Amino acid sequence: MTTTTTERMLNFGAGPAMLPTEVWEEARENLLSFEGSGVGIAELSHRSPEYSAVHADVEERIRRLLGLTDDWAVLFLTGGASSQAFMVPMNLGTRGDYSITGVWAKKAHAEGVILGDAHVASTSAETLFDHIPAEHSWRDDADYAHITSNNTIYGTQFHAFPETAAPLVADMSSDILSRPLDLDRFGLIYAGAQKNLGPAGVTLVIIRKSLLERTSDSLPTMLRYTTHEAKSSLYNTPPTFPIYMVGLVAKWIEAQGGLEAIAERNAAKARVLYESIDSNDLYTGHAAEGDRSLMNVAWRLADDSPQQAFLDGAKAQGMVGLKGHRSIGGIRASIYNAMPADGIARLAQYMSDFAARA
Amino acid sequence: MTTTTTERMLNFGAGPAMLPTEVWEEARENLLSFEGSGVGIAELSHRSPEYSAVHADVEERIRRLLGLTDDWAVLFLTGGASSQAFMVPMNLGTRGDYSITGVWAKKAHAEGVILGDAHVASTSAETLFDHIPAEHSWRDDADYAHITSNNTIYGTQFHAFPETAAPLVADMSSDILSRPLDLDRFGLIYAGAQKNLGPAGVTLVIIRKSLLERTSDSLPTMLRYTTHEAKSSLYNTPPTFPIYMVGLVAKWIEAQGGLEAIAERNAAKARVLYESIDSNDLYTGHAAEGDRSLMNVAWRLADDSPQQAFLDGAKAQGMVGLKGHRSIGGIRASIYNAMPADGIARLAQYMSDFAARA
Repeated sequence: MTTTTTERMLNFGAGPAMLPTEVWEEARENLLSFEGSGVGIAELSHRSPEYSAVHADVEERIRRLLGLTDDWAVLFLTGGASSQAFMVPMNLGTRGDYSITGVWAKKAHAEGVILGDAHVASTSAETLFDHIPAEHSWRDDADYAHITSNNTIYGTQFHAFPETAAPLVADMSSDILSRPLDLDRFGLIYAGAQKNLGPAGVTLVIIRKSLLERTSDSLPTMLRYTTHEAKSSLYNTPPTFPIYMVGLVAKWIEAQGGLEAIAERNAAKARVLYESIDSNDLYTGHAAEGDRSLMNVAWRLADDSPQQAFLDGAKAQGMVGLKGHRSIGGIRASIYNAMPADGIARLAQYMSDFAARA
Repeated sequence: MTTTTTERMLNFGAGPAMLPTEVWEEARENLLSFEGSGVGIAELSHRSPEYSAVHADVEERIRRLLGLTDDWAVLFLTGGASSQAFMVPMNLGTRGDYSITGVWAKKAHAEGVILGDAHVASTSAETLFDHIPAEHSWRDDADYAHITSNNTIYGTQFHAFPETAAPLVADMSSDILSRPLDLDRFGLIYAGAQKNLGPAGVTLVIIRKSLLERTSDSLPTMLRYTTHEAKSSLYNTPPTFPIYMVGLVAKWIEAQGGLEAIAERNAAKARVLYESIDSNDLYTGHAAEGDRSLMNVAWRLADDSPQQAFLDGAKAQGMVGLKGHRSIGGIRASIYNAMPADGIARLAQYMSDFAARA
């Protein structure tokens, strides 16, 4: 109860990731009694007036932030992005094209293969996913074209979205709400919450309503997008606390000035770290310069040996979660919306100090 | 931050339901910094040593409470009991028998129909599910036999479990961990967390490992029980905060003396309410006497008119969530593990006072 902000570590972990301290403070106030009701936020019936208002408010904030018209449905599902990997072909049709830009894209493609005719439209596997392919062989008659907009492990990101004949489906788990989107380009966007949206346990799906016609009633009820759209994600008991948290995060983003302002902040934050990498010989970035992610910054030390020293020293200064993913090694700083600019400044200073000592 | 126990309402809602105040107090302490780590419990990577220890501990406590041997797998999934309704036939085989004892059983059966050859072995629909059928026409060659052990809406409960040739599958969403179980009778048990286990957002599945052989690799990865068993429910990012909460609830149950002690307490609590119903002409219980639920007590007032007065008066005394489900109307008190005996005493006193005034 007495934890103060200063006791909080700077958490650069890839996810479940840090959320703004203010968000947790508000949640903490409502854990035993939501807005003075005497019932904790996670103890409210999902049919209660109190929770219904929360639920509607969260959807409204997501719609406002992304500028979603009534052409779009907003769904709060479970099962993570991993479940969307199969729900997309189940609902939209099993002829799917994939741009393979990392492990998550590869896993999504594998589910497409299980369910039907999945085609690799492009891949950067041969160079350990260090870039976003410039060319893609999208099929004109595909049911959808799938991309992973940001690649958490390799630190690459689509900065422009491809033109596709089929509806573009994007796994935005690690960069949703980090920048404004030109929605005209998309048919469906999905995102596990645990990076930029909230705690683990809820998955946001934004789908163009015209695509809902494709869902077959022969699917199990819970696997149909139409079920959740018809019931505003209240067909069954939704993960109420994670959804509430998404609302607090959305409110926080609005207070920061919305997606334009957040995007500017994120770009400035990332610039500081990439400059740190580029200006020190000790460090080498993983991603091709033009495809560098603003959310996950991955780099290597010139010599493998001081890596543990780098991590230990960072931890001693209150910075954790910096170990790179095992598939590429090195260091990774995940700098989602919630990472403050002064956290970035501290890391950059540390990188510079460490390089000077090395 | 200053909410005290006395400000908490007595929440008789059916779910998401109340959890012990001590459990929320412990969660609140760890929301911004888990055990002094400087990283909140829901901000820990699911691969971190801290969360890994929590995850293993929760499974261990569930195993200990239920007395599960290594013949059983314990899975933490998402999608609620509604998703188990289709995952059971998908994984175990599509020839399923169902005892229809309420809306949830009916919905499970409907998913069985979508996926294959689902048979109604028994039903109490013709008397608005006011009892548990005594006879069932289980098929000898079914892939499984499905029951709903406790019927939240109607207040009925299986007090003895049927003998079935096929593995018995039970939806125990509303009475899991409320009493010891003779596991020999079961093949698979599932439960949405939000009544007796924790907050909404995680589903407990307990499955006999021998049944895992039935799962086909042609299923999407996330829909296979085998995927989650092989990875200890860490194939993808699990709902870490809800799972953590299940662990706190399990620890609380152990502190109460385990399932034997909890079952005795629950029986005593229910007895007080049923005595209140039976001793006042104003009240009529919905469930047949021998099938009365120890978790959900449903009754009607002699005259429909004073019902709102009953609810309003209860609320004025700090008791909420007592409105019966719309499908049967009347009053319902959900008295899961977390409802204290003195909460029951207060409700019984109120029932008696209200009847005296009516």
